[in-house]
Amino acid sequence: MPVYHQYSLMKCIILAGGSGTRLWPLSRVQFPKQFLKIGDHSLFQATWLRARKLASADEIYVVTNEAHQYLVNNQLEEVGATLDPAHLLREPCGRNTLPAIAWAMATIRAECGDAIAVVFPSDHHLDEAALQEIEAAVPLAEDHLVTFGVKPDCPHTGYGYIRPGAPLVCGSAVDSFKEKPDKETAEGYCQAGYLWNSGMFLLRTTIFFEELERYQPAMAAAFAAGVPEEYAALQNLSIDYGLLEVSERVAVVPLDCAWSDMGDFKALYDHAAHDPKGNAGKAEYIDATGNYVHAKGKAIGLIGVNNLAVVDTGDALLVCAKDQTDKVRDLVARFKGQQNAITEHHLEEHRPWGSYKVLETGPFYKIKRVTVSPGKWLSLQLHCHRSEHWIVVSGMAEVHLNGDTQFLCQGQSTFVTTGSRHRLGNPGRIPLEVIEVQIGEYLEEDDIVRFEDKYGRA
Amino acid sequence: MPVYHQYSLMKCIILAGGSGTRLWPLSRVQFPKQFLKIGDHSLFQATWLRARKLASADEIYVVTNEAHQYLVNNQLEEVGATLDPAHLLREPCGRNTLPAIAWAMATIRAECGDAIAVVFPSDHHLDEAALQEIEAAVPLAEDHLVTFGVKPDCPHTGYGYIRPGAPLVCGSAVDSFKEKPDKETAEGYCQAGYLWNSGMFLLRTTIFFEELERYQPAMAAAFAAGVPEEYAALQNLSIDYGLLEVSERVAVVPLDCAWSDMGDFKALYDHAAHDPKGNAGKAEYIDATGNYVHAKGKAIGLIGVNNLAVVDTGDALLVCAKDQTDKVRDLVARFKGQQNAITEHHLEEHRPWGSYKVLETGPFYKIKRVTVSPGKWLSLQLHCHRSEHWIVVSGMAEVHLNGDTQFLCQGQSTFVTTGSRHRLGNPGRIPLEVIEVQIGEYLEEDDIVRFEDKYGRA
Repeated sequence: MPVYHQYSLMKCIILAGGSGTRLWPLSRVQFPKQFLKIGDHSLFQATWLRARKLASADEIYVVTNEAHQYLVNNQLEEVGATLDPAHLLREPCGRNTLPAIAWAMATIRAECGDAIAVVFPSDHHLDEAALQEIEAAVPLAEDHLVTFGVKPDCPHTGYGYIRPGAPLVCGSAVDSFKEKPDKETAEGYCQAGYLWNSGMFLLRTTIFFEELERYQPAMAAAFAAGVPEEYAALQNLSIDYGLLEVSERVAVVPLDCAWSDMGDFKALYDHAAHDPKGNAGKAEYIDATGNYVHAKGKAIGLIGVNNLAVVDTGDALLVCAKDQTDKVRDLVARFKGQQNAITEHHLEEHRPWGSYKVLETGPFYKIKRVTVSPGKWLSLQLHCHRSEHWIVVSGMAEVHLNGDTQFLCQGQSTFVTTGSRHRLGNPGRIPLEVIEVQIGEYLEEDDIVRFEDKYGRA
Repeated sequence: MPVYHQYSLMKCIILAGGSGTRLWPLSRVQFPKQFLKIGDHSLFQATWLRARKLASADEIYVVTNEAHQYLVNNQLEEVGATLDPAHLLREPCGRNTLPAIAWAMATIRAECGDAIAVVFPSDHHLDEAALQEIEAAVPLAEDHLVTFGVKPDCPHTGYGYIRPGAPLVCGSAVDSFKEKPDKETAEGYCQAGYLWNSGMFLLRTTIFFEELERYQPAMAAAFAAGVPEEYAALQNLSIDYGLLEVSERVAVVPLDCAWSDMGDFKALYDHAAHDPKGNAGKAEYIDATGNYVHAKGKAIGLIGVNNLAVVDTGDALLVCAKDQTDKVRDLVARFKGQQNAITEHHLEEHRPWGSYKVLETGPFYKIKRVTVSPGKWLSLQLHCHRSEHWIVVSGMAEVHLNGDTQFLCQGQSTFVTTGSRHRLGNPGRIPLEVIEVQIGEYLEEDDIVRFEDKYGRA
């Protein structure tokens, strides 16, 4: 294993604000790609662990959507990490990469003055071998905005390309950026030595703000005093369009390593382990080759089919020719029109205190498995239209009910009548699992009156 | 609507003992094809309703596997029908069609002497127009074993064929029976006017037993005094091999109507309604044609795929090229080797008192939705390794617990500790639905001590 030198001024910015639809039904608006578990970790968790090889935890900044802040914290907790709350930058709305990066760079400048930061998208796969090459580019970042270009191993039509220009101390100047090409153009790019635009950057605060001032003065002004009050009023702009394609101080460093934007099921298939027939994913295959299967907790059989992506999530199923994954976007658009929830949420929802999963919904009842993290509490609350039975199946529950306190262990239960003030918490050291049976005429999440909440939601 | 004349001696025999695997995961060993809901009714229910146009309820005999007797009764109850308990012939094991039909014919002979009976498989689709043609064949059945041959509308390779011989009063003598042919042979059969062997027969007790005596004397002897004591000792034999292919008194009556053995997903697809792109089943289709989708309660998208069968059942998923459905059998064989339950049971299980569905299984808990039919009772029982919480979500429960009786309505609950004698019943007029949360170290169905049972299982 290589040992990385901690560059004293190296900060890390993790961009975790995306909300793609190309991996539906795995990804949802409220559970985007970066939080999906691919193997042991989510892409976001893997990105954090990678960043930790270059920086200490308190040198890492995460930009995410307000709605995903608990997901970020819960997933960091899972890998035993803690993020400085001041370094969790919560966008009230997505405004693309330039405002997100500018916000993180402004925060770094305010805290440390002149510094160099590496920017990682949180929804890509990157081989760790790249980290040494990234560190080696620090001298170049002294006076350049540094991009990283991955050496192509195929003429991919789903990536942007960078044409390198004159050689520099390390890497090259950038001759030009190229949009996603068609197949033939991509082949030409590969032969000519163009690189994939990886979306990773190495930026020095001084240079970044000088160039922002020059090319996007309005945005530079907005960030001059720190965080702009009206984030939504900022221009929706990528760093590529807003800065890199116009600045004359842009360099590209080639990376010769495995990298993928994990942008569609084809990419997930390529990344996965294959059996001798080229199938990836646990299933029984009969006369079937080149398929990608993703599902949990069910028996799956594929017969006589080739090059399919078969993705099942309990509430949704996608069967897609692997070379037509670009149409998943159209499918999601269709569903948005008729049953929006299936594009917004998973059956499992994340909350600051843990998560819950809807197990079944009937005409007047709903059954959930509620998981409360150790030491966490739901709000003190009341429902107008439903009663709730709680049965502890794992761990210890502390229940406050109309002013009384009771402790329930595995196999014990309690009943919360409509209109009762109640609160559920986990005073223990292992996750608390409760089966909740709701009964009532109206069972939506918005039937809740919050009196106190540790997470500011009252 | 045609009006059918009730032939005073017309009995109906419904064969409901089959257990095919070609419709997995819809069908399971414990829930075979005939009980699957195709549209409003199961094939078995549709067969019963069809039989009722030819005979009164007390003239119908059902032969089924012992294990499926409650399914038969529950499905009849659903369509408001009652079967004479003496007419439910419960095979302790499957011995193919000849013993099954002989048993029903022997029962009819014992009850009514000489009579004519129509035999319906319960897992086929048949257009009702055929009923008039069947009735019209009664005179022919006076001195023939009558088979029905469907006029082919395609050179099907999955059916046996009948070659008609010399014309009779109606229909013809049978020249010969043909095994399932290959494509080319099937084309020749169709051109030559051969008919599909439908598996339906019109049999007169006298003729049937005369011929049985002649060609299968051992079996005839076994049924001479009624039901043989050792059913398992009977020869495993189809009526085709055992009687029809050897007897010289066999006739065939052509049927010019829609018929299908619903034997694979291709057949279910053909039977279903299609959209303009030839897709059958509720899903979003993008650049997809000729697909069959069967699933419940989930959002489904198909992109860029053609002629697939996509069948989802919560615990299992099949994606199969529609022209390779014969390999489903191989798939089931593979699963049998590794996780037998997925080929045996559905998540929803049927019991004499109703049904239950497993909603979730965890390390030390299991959650079920239990449905008890009006007026029905579970056994008085006890569990050694689990406690049970019951929460009524619909209807009224009567609970006997350690000698006490309580009535629970919607939203009420009770707790059955390990080792308690308990009994659950539905004293009401609508189905009772209870959510049961089991907690314990061992949660299998065989942890049950039964003290009393209305269905003889104690």
